[in-house]
Amino acid sequence: MKVQKQNKHLSINLVFVTGNANKLREVQYILSQGQRPIQIDSHDLDSKLAFIFHFPEIQGTTQEVARAKCQRAAELLGGPCITEDTALCFKALNGLPGPYIKYFMKSIGHDGLNSMLDGFPTKEAWALCTFAYSSGPDAEPILFEGRTEGMIVPARGPATFGWDPVFQAEDTGKTYAEMTNEEKNFISHRYRALDKLRNYLESL
Amino acid sequence: MKVQKQNKHLSINLVFVTGNANKLREVQYILSQGQRPIQIDSHDLDSKLAFIFHFPEIQGTTQEVARAKCQRAAELLGGPCITEDTALCFKALNGLPGPYIKYFMKSIGHDGLNSMLDGFPTKEAWALCTFAYSSGPDAEPILFEGRTEGMIVPARGPATFGWDPVFQAEDTGKTYAEMTNEEKNFISHRYRALDKLRNYLESL
Repeated sequence: MKVQKQNKHLSINLVFVTGNANKLREVQYILSQGQRPIQIDSHDLDSKLAFIFHFPEIQGTTQEVARAKCQRAAELLGGPCITEDTALCFKALNGLPGPYIKYFMKSIGHDGLNSMLDGFPTKEAWALCTFAYSSGPDAEPILFEGRTEGMIVPARGPATFGWDPVFQAEDTGKTYAEMTNEEKNFISHRYRALDKLRNYLESL
Repeated sequence: MKVQKQNKHLSINLVFVTGNANKLREVQYILSQGQRPIQIDSHDLDSKLAFIFHFPEIQGTTQEVARAKCQRAAELLGGPCITEDTALCFKALNGLPGPYIKYFMKSIGHDGLNSMLDGFPTKEAWALCTFAYSSGPDAEPILFEGRTEGMIVPARGPATFGWDPVFQAEDTGKTYAEMTNEEKNFISHRYRALDKLRNYLESL
């Protein structure tokens, strides 16, 4: 996907490294909002990108995971890129499963994520999105974090997007899965991170 | 640490990549048993090894994690080496936390590991040790797995070695922490993996 800046002579060719069509749509939507829309053109994956998708993530904090992935992607692509990482952090587990949530979601599903918290007094959680931007292989990636508070609840809403049905965002009474795209984008961890990234890219 | 084979003309110089003194002692003990003892000399860490310790593990299955670490170590050391990985797998979580157990142990401790299972009908678990041996940078690592069945219980015994106090090994009525070294080595996941490795090394 190329990001092209409009209304300015400078344009940035930027690859968004993702294999997730849902994330791509969400990111396209959010970057198209704002005073100076940034357009993402979809783009066939070449072999370098396929390699990135199969290259394993590292273990570590969400920041370490994000930085390593973006750095590796920039080296492989030989140019600027953005990457995205999502974590779901349980207060009772001091932030875990965090970057490992995908394994837990796959292994035990929505019911299991709830059961993991049965023995703890708090069901509080936060969704954390980390966008990383690298201007190229020799640059240190810059991180943009977005965080949304909430709690883990029994699944409600369509089960089309990972753990969305079990995360009820604070002050909404709704799970992510019960929200329209507009509602979700307005408060989501991904929106908040992407908004910071958009502001940064617009300032370049 | 160098492993030197005795009673044979062939000798293998082999580095055991670990920063954990407890594991080193356990491995030294187990390799010193058997018909043809393998001696491990302790060995100051050089900068390459320090780098390995700080190089992050990858995310993935226990086999993927072990293979990647051993491969990386062999490339950095430029010679043969063994690495070790430990996982604690909860049946209720379909094998998780698995290779991520160290983060859960650090974040929520013995009580938390028990609480995570409160909402599930089974407390069954297995301890899994994976030794990987690489004959050098161009070789594919060979894996040796040892598995011990058991269950997660409230902590009993000295809290000196990770999750040992909460893992009760099947048919023993004791947690790992309540066992003598001899008792533990006889049935431990690490012993079983190391026994396979020792047999392999002796056959070279």
